[in-house]
Amino acid sequence: MMLPTVTSPSRSLDAALRAKIDSKTKPLGALGQLESLALQIGQVQASLSPTLAQPTLLVFAADHGIAHAGVSAYPQAVTEQMVLNFLSGGAAINVFCRASGLDLRIVDAGVNADFGTLPGLIDRKIAHGTANFATQPAMTAAQCDAALTAGAELADDLANHGCTVLGLGEMGIANTSAAALLVHVLSGLPLVECIGRGTGLDDAGLARKHAILAAALAHHGQPADARAALMTFGGFEIAMMAGAMLGAAARRVLVLVDGFIASAAYLVAQQMQPALSDYAVFCHCSDEHGHRALLRHLDVKPLLDLGLRLGEGSGAALAYPLVNAAVAFLNDMASFESAGVSEKTA
Amino acid sequence: MMLPTVTSPSRSLDAALRAKIDSKTKPLGALGQLESLALQIGQVQASLSPTLAQPTLLVFAADHGIAHAGVSAYPQAVTEQMVLNFLSGGAAINVFCRASGLDLRIVDAGVNADFGTLPGLIDRKIAHGTANFATQPAMTAAQCDAALTAGAELADDLANHGCTVLGLGEMGIANTSAAALLVHVLSGLPLVECIGRGTGLDDAGLARKHAILAAALAHHGQPADARAALMTFGGFEIAMMAGAMLGAAARRVLVLVDGFIASAAYLVAQQMQPALSDYAVFCHCSDEHGHRALLRHLDVKPLLDLGLRLGEGSGAALAYPLVNAAVAFLNDMASFESAGVSEKTA
Repeated sequence: MMLPTVTSPSRSLDAALRAKIDSKTKPLGALGQLESLALQIGQVQASLSPTLAQPTLLVFAADHGIAHAGVSAYPQAVTEQMVLNFLSGGAAINVFCRASGLDLRIVDAGVNADFGTLPGLIDRKIAHGTANFATQPAMTAAQCDAALTAGAELADDLANHGCTVLGLGEMGIANTSAAALLVHVLSGLPLVECIGRGTGLDDAGLARKHAILAAALAHHGQPADARAALMTFGGFEIAMMAGAMLGAAARRVLVLVDGFIASAAYLVAQQMQPALSDYAVFCHCSDEHGHRALLRHLDVKPLLDLGLRLGEGSGAALAYPLVNAAVAFLNDMASFESAGVSEKTA
Repeated sequence: MMLPTVTSPSRSLDAALRAKIDSKTKPLGALGQLESLALQIGQVQASLSPTLAQPTLLVFAADHGIAHAGVSAYPQAVTEQMVLNFLSGGAAINVFCRASGLDLRIVDAGVNADFGTLPGLIDRKIAHGTANFATQPAMTAAQCDAALTAGAELADDLANHGCTVLGLGEMGIANTSAAALLVHVLSGLPLVECIGRGTGLDDAGLARKHAILAAALAHHGQPADARAALMTFGGFEIAMMAGAMLGAAARRVLVLVDGFIASAAYLVAQQMQPALSDYAVFCHCSDEHGHRALLRHLDVKPLLDLGLRLGEGSGAALAYPLVNAAVAFLNDMASFESAGVSEKTA
């Protein structure tokens, strides 16, 4: 498998970017996180006047064998049903992408359903869902590599068509279970800190989920590396998101990371290519239990913290206007000099 | 003075609003704060399908006599210069209002400058800045009432023209000093918790600001009520913001509260008309020292927490897309039934 190589952007424009930010008619540092975001985007695009072109959100959908063990509050059929909902424009991510001006594309990464050819659905199906990792690896090495590659190719293709900012979202019943184990084995966070209620398990459901995941972990043991973890516990949508993040970053496309599942995909991808971190914007802190701990582990502060726990890329779509605002102030605000405003005296 | 009366919205649609929110194709509660926001907006408009029409942001500018005592890192002339910057479109609030689709209007509430007639500037000047509250009340009772009334009239006029959501921002060198004292005397928070670095005081400047404000407080003593506090320590922009909040709420216009100064204006207005709280959306937590404590005192969780400390209504403009998204999901998302998605089983 040939995954794209991600290299860190040059820091050669840093001083000029900081000077441009500081010249704007506002107290030094007064735009807080938007200032670091503007700096990051300038670095990524190696430009003092970066632009956000063809902002796009990809939603990857796939099913999980572990769903059959009873780890979710919703039946597996919901993955397929939600893909149809995405295609007819009725899901939260449709509404939020329209509101934020993001182009939304839906990818079948491995849903356990036969869609035939549906207008608007990008068919990159690896299989009809993963195997049940309670007893066997979720995917074969070939499937894992195919999913990573498909994601990278999709991002590369978007970059070829001028996209400079890409959000990644997902849909897959039981994928908080896959993500919980990926986060646990790749971050070292205690398993109990990584397991949440997903779509709304009650206490008994949560205890059952914990028992099932602990048993799966005991069965497989600690994977050798990120790719092995992905094969063992991952999902096709998670692998494809990880590949898309790497493909985007390799093309200097800004990567908008959504919630818990997307952050698990990021963790996998970033361990494969550490420079990915320079291209990633963490969009929100999800209410799903493990996400806050994971963000702390990654030492990042997300843009939003609204108690969302929906996935689909919804946090990325909701945060996109802030990313846009960061670029807008860098490009469009007047300087103290141009506006004739006095500078600080004390 | 006749200030508008604010009454709490009816709760008669609450059950229907909650049912509509819960019928959407998402796990129960999965949109977190956006769900409570959608509920609030439905209440405010007494509608299951509320709309955000003619979203507007008013920036009130005024000067403060206390600026002459040396409480700010910038000279007083910056208030006038920034008004000109607003009018020529180069300030942060211009950029953010354009990005968020808000109509921006600039009001001279009491800038210490003679603008003559400037295209785009709404002239409601009370005086050329307040008096220096180190030694005398910032304004007379007549000035205070005139500022409150002007704000209420401006909001009422916007409502007459179809505006249903109004953000309030401000510009006024030294106005964190006025706000700090208002917050202290009206909330009971310790003075030291209410005083911050404003536009960027260093440690010595902060100590000086604290000494000046403590002396002013000792000179005037505890004001009898919110209006007396506003007269004694307030600014014309703060009074006009408070009036505009009341005027908006009286017309069932949603009120977007920005940062520390705007929250101080809210505190004044809400103590005059407690039902204002039902109409207020707290947009962000400012990095200005006293804001987090004030928000905690008010028992509210703002939408954004990005380390901003700019004022101008910038946090309100940046948060507006989230308000819009809350209304959009309520109106535009499919229901489980309409989309044929299975509901929760566990």
